Amino acid sequence: MAKNLAHKLIEQHLVSGKMQPGEEVQLKIDQTLCQDATGTMVMLEFEALGLPKVKTELSAQYVDHNLIQADFKNADDHLFLRSASRKWGIWYSRPGNGISHAVHMACFGKPGKTLLGSDSHTCAGGSMGMLAMGAGGLQVALAMAGIAFSLVMPEVVGVEVTGKLPPWVSAKDVILEMLRRYDVNGGVNKIFEYYGPGLENLTAMDRHVIANMGQEMGATASVFPADDQVRAFLKQQGREDDFTPLHADDGAGYDHNDSIDLSTLEPLVACPSSPGKVVTVREVAGKPIYQSYIGSSANPGLRDFVVPALMLKDRQVPEEISLDINPTSRQVLEELSNSGHLNSLLQAGARLHQTGCNGCIGMGQAPATGRISLRTVPRNFPGRSGTKEDQVYLCSPETATASALLGKITDPRDLDMDYPSFSEPLTLKDMRPLLLAPQEIPVKVELEKGPNIQPLPEFDSLSETLAGPILLKAGENVSTDEILPAGTDILPLRSNIPAISHYTFSRIDESFYQRAKDYGGDSFVIGGENYGQGSSREHAAIAPRYLGVRAVIAVSMARIHRRNLINFGVVPLLFKAPADLARLHQGNELKITNLPAQLRNGNAIQVTLEDGKQLEVIHNMSADEVATVIAGGLINKVRENELADARESSKT
Amino acid sequence: MAKNLAHKLIEQHLVSGKMQPGEEVQLKIDQTLCQDATGTMVMLEFEALGLPKVKTELSAQYVDHNLIQADFKNADDHLFLRSASRKWGIWYSRPGNGISHAVHMACFGKPGKTLLGSDSHTCAGGSMGMLAMGAGGLQVALAMAGIAFSLVMPEVVGVEVTGKLPPWVSAKDVILEMLRRYDVNGGVNKIFEYYGPGLENLTAMDRHVIANMGQEMGATASVFPADDQVRAFLKQQGREDDFTPLHADDGAGYDHNDSIDLSTLEPLVACPSSPGKVVTVREVAGKPIYQSYIGSSANPGLRDFVVPALMLKDRQVPEEISLDINPTSRQVLEELSNSGHLNSLLQAGARLHQTGCNGCIGMGQAPATGRISLRTVPRNFPGRSGTKEDQVYLCSPETATASALLGKITDPRDLDMDYPSFSEPLTLKDMRPLLLAPQEIPVKVELEKGPNIQPLPEFDSLSETLAGPILLKAGENVSTDEILPAGTDILPLRSNIPAISHYTFSRIDESFYQRAKDYGGDSFVIGGENYGQGSSREHAAIAPRYLGVRAVIAVSMARIHRRNLINFGVVPLLFKAPADLARLHQGNELKITNLPAQLRNGNAIQVTLEDGKQLEVIHNMSADEVATVIAGGLINKVRENELADARESSKT
Repeated sequence: MAKNLAHKLIEQHLVSGKMQPGEEVQLKIDQTLCQDATGTMVMLEFEALGLPKVKTELSAQYVDHNLIQADFKNADDHLFLRSASRKWGIWYSRPGNGISHAVHMACFGKPGKTLLGSDSHTCAGGSMGMLAMGAGGLQVALAMAGIAFSLVMPEVVGVEVTGKLPPWVSAKDVILEMLRRYDVNGGVNKIFEYYGPGLENLTAMDRHVIANMGQEMGATASVFPADDQVRAFLKQQGREDDFTPLHADDGAGYDHNDSIDLSTLEPLVACPSSPGKVVTVREVAGKPIYQSYIGSSANPGLRDFVVPALMLKDRQVPEEISLDINPTSRQVLEELSNSGHLNSLLQAGARLHQTGCNGCIGMGQAPATGRISLRTVPRNFPGRSGTKEDQVYLCSPETATASALLGKITDPRDLDMDYPSFSEPLTLKDMRPLLLAPQEIPVKVELEKGPNIQPLPEFDSLSETLAGPILLKAGENVSTDEILPAGTDILPLRSNIPAISHYTFSRIDESFYQRAKDYGGDSFVIGGENYGQGSSREHAAIAPRYLGVRAVIAVSMARIHRRNLINFGVVPLLFKAPADLARLHQGNELKITNLPAQLRNGNAIQVTLEDGKQLEVIHNMSADEVATVIAGGLINKVRENELADARESSKT
Repeated sequence: MAKNLAHKLIEQHLVSGKMQPGEEVQLKIDQTLCQDATGTMVMLEFEALGLPKVKTELSAQYVDHNLIQADFKNADDHLFLRSASRKWGIWYSRPGNGISHAVHMACFGKPGKTLLGSDSHTCAGGSMGMLAMGAGGLQVALAMAGIAFSLVMPEVVGVEVTGKLPPWVSAKDVILEMLRRYDVNGGVNKIFEYYGPGLENLTAMDRHVIANMGQEMGATASVFPADDQVRAFLKQQGREDDFTPLHADDGAGYDHNDSIDLSTLEPLVACPSSPGKVVTVREVAGKPIYQSYIGSSANPGLRDFVVPALMLKDRQVPEEISLDINPTSRQVLEELSNSGHLNSLLQAGARLHQTGCNGCIGMGQAPATGRISLRTVPRNFPGRSGTKEDQVYLCSPETATASALLGKITDPRDLDMDYPSFSEPLTLKDMRPLLLAPQEIPVKVELEKGPNIQPLPEFDSLSETLAGPILLKAGENVSTDEILPAGTDILPLRSNIPAISHYTFSRIDESFYQRAKDYGGDSFVIGGENYGQGSSREHAAIAPRYLGVRAVIAVSMARIHRRNLINFGVVPLLFKAPADLARLHQGNELKITNLPAQLRNGNAIQVTLEDGKQLEVIHNMSADEVATVIAGGLINKVRENELADARESSKT
């Protein structure tokens, strides 16, 4: 039977389970990737597993998030990650090398491999024929230990791509069009597989843009074939030998079908404060802006900087506009410098920032009060920029640059300018020599833990009866940025759960932490649709759990966060009747009796309200997930089970 | 009579007073300079003066300090400064243009002019035959209003420079040698005038390094002649027409004489945590380091980056070393890019940061816990890096680079390497087109004040009796960084005195703020030698005053801080017998009766201790300064006096 590419990739890595949508499958993971903001916790978790080295084909640790060292914490974390990488046979990428996803793609991306990363945008790897997925840190730690990755088998949406992008329209507009169609939760439990004649007009880095922001639709992964564009990319990186052609079989079918004609697209923006609020640029054109921000994992290609440089050559942006250039990687920055494009940007008035994630995760570059920021980044959740009530629009580099030039939101087609032409250089500087490679001969390495690096708290197993108040009723589409914010003050606490827990839900309700501490017992959080969308940070599960939250009841949940809740012993429950959401309010006391047994038998679960009335909730956990949440989380569970096997096999 | 250059410059600008050391002189100020961390307060003060535009020949506002926008505050400040610059006829330099002192020198520096700046390193302008001085913001605001600058006439130290620097020894080692001789207070009330045949071997930017860190000796200013090196610098900047030769007269005398033979110098470092703790690099060589930091106003020349680039070409620093490159200005960064040197740095593993002051003022780049940081910056006061108990060494770019390469403190002469040769380019890119020039025709401009920009508090005049507790007894050489720290969290509060006052003395005593608030009344602070050294931030006077501190009694005081205290109505008193310092302790109640009268008649002032015993303090304030402190500060005083004249004359 003709197979689509997603099914081929899954089949080739299937350890157990049945490839039926909704069933749980276990997949062999070939490669893992961590960034520093989630990586310190992954390394602490891997340490808890007690293995001598990673069991993947390749694992890599990048430092790209916590680059602003306001005090010792981030610097200590970098040294810790380096020591952990040396100890366990992990590639280590020093600060300044660049954003994990782009550097990984350049150095290690390989068609046909699986990649699991403790960053939600790991899915960008799908751009080169990989099955690449973001996950909570603990699952990445387990993958590093050689334990198969459990996943609900997704449906596959086949997207036929035809045509060619018109001038001034680029890959970012493609994924914004997809977000316009699917919004921020239309991709849940789906893989988007792109195919068709239009792909020959999209480079590997264009596809990276599209695959990266597949995450914003809630998709499990995005998959592109490994074709001549991928071959050209690997050749450019000096790794043509790593190329394997990969395509769907002729006549392969999909669970759903969609199509996109590139030639019909126009410049789009996602309006504040959701990646799904997409309109045409012209619909919002003319609004004065404060900032244009170029860079991030969502527009990491060399072309995403060269096209703006060509647009800005011999021009200047008004001095009240902050034009922030955030180079993706050492490779991109070097090429911009060699080619003279860097100076075009500088002479236009751009601010050149250090290589890395920077303002995309609230590490600097926050906009002024009440002012508009246009960004090529993947997300514009409320306050993620660092400024409360921010006005962040997501757009292409072309739109950001045109708007910077005129000081107001501008469709680049409305500039009196020819669309600059850009050709990828045939080769780029190999970045691998600046990464620390795993040592062939194991050396004894002491982990370097600064005073802010604290062990994971121990969590107890689920008791028979769960009773307590609703500590918070959150709204719709609450992101992990709202559950546990990033930013310059909070990110440095990622290795310290007691400290970071002070900021739990602080974007939504500044009194949450104190209320939770004052109460001190088990509690509930209530959410609407798509609860926990966005970043993969497991801290958004660990910190509430640390403060006593033992169950979340929501209308629906984002994939990675749902699994993070399970991983740390927080029961993810769904309203059987979504209308029941209106019956619950902050402060209400809830009670569920015989919870473990009810979870195990899988039927609707009765929740008793304070007035004695009941409502029904359900769950969509697999038996394995139920066992995990009952054990109080995955660490407790693996200590009893898989780990013993893994330790055993590593002796051989 | 033959005159030295310092005397010529003072004489040419003398408005009133007698040029006798210790006497007060009033000087016409030609140019002013502000950076953003002090500039917002200057602009609020200038606003309070109510003038339609500045009355200087040239005033400039730079944005170089608060570049990390963790939230709206810094971005709001940038917009405020731009609006203030437009309103009052000030040059505005956008974020990303670079460090005020170097950019000002390149764009506006002119031999023979006076320059007053709200940054202590304004003295760097002495490198090109200017009389350039740092001052508290309020005095800069008054200078902008055309009011002469009052100064205690300093003594002039003539430093004869002979010989030529050996390989691997550079300008930083010259000023470190001066600091070795004079320590951090040997320059108080002195101007250092450099002359002699050795100067022909020091470029204008080399002299900038030396003049900049004259501040670290407590000097009022440093002065170099305007000679062929200065002419070459101005020609490089496309401003040869701005050159005027300036020298001391033949046979001119000095109050003190010193000499330095460049050929005898060797690489030096200032050890933690004072710029005065100077030893040879070899004395501390071999200690493992975490960081080498290149950049800042203390090593801003193109050569300070090119020499490291040449040393690092085709080499790599170990991946555990953070090699932080902080380009001075757009001009330096562009030239590094054009010349390919930028890529040598990047390929060596360097982290390229945004153009500006950055880690020098604790805006990122803090070292890891307990690890050594080598920096080319001017200061290593305790905790200024952002990390408590930091280990910061000050050194030349050569020493920082050699140490980065080997991962340990290294005398660059001990590398197996030829000293790279560097020649200044004949021309560099003019930066002025990227600054906003004052408008010829005045336009109506609304000041853009974000919610964090709060008016200056009103302060009352001095009462007859000053009584209250000693809220803090500080130690020796307490810097303004310890009185009111900088760093990523605190700098953004510079426009908001009530908010920033929470951090008063927090480096020394975290409970100070609460103690002051709890007490609520007038109080004293006690200090040792050289109280208030370092940065010119007037917040270190305003915040204690806001919390009730009405007098500081110290053994001696740094010039700028002493004047800032007066400017905001805090009485600066000195022990008549320094041994009395030991008699005072935190919590002691002190009382001074008839304080205004005692200050006016200038004799020793009696302070009554709680046990009824007395001790004597003195002051060295001029009559004008006494009137200022009695009025409760300079704003109160000028409202009554000078300002009326200034307003009157601006009508004509």
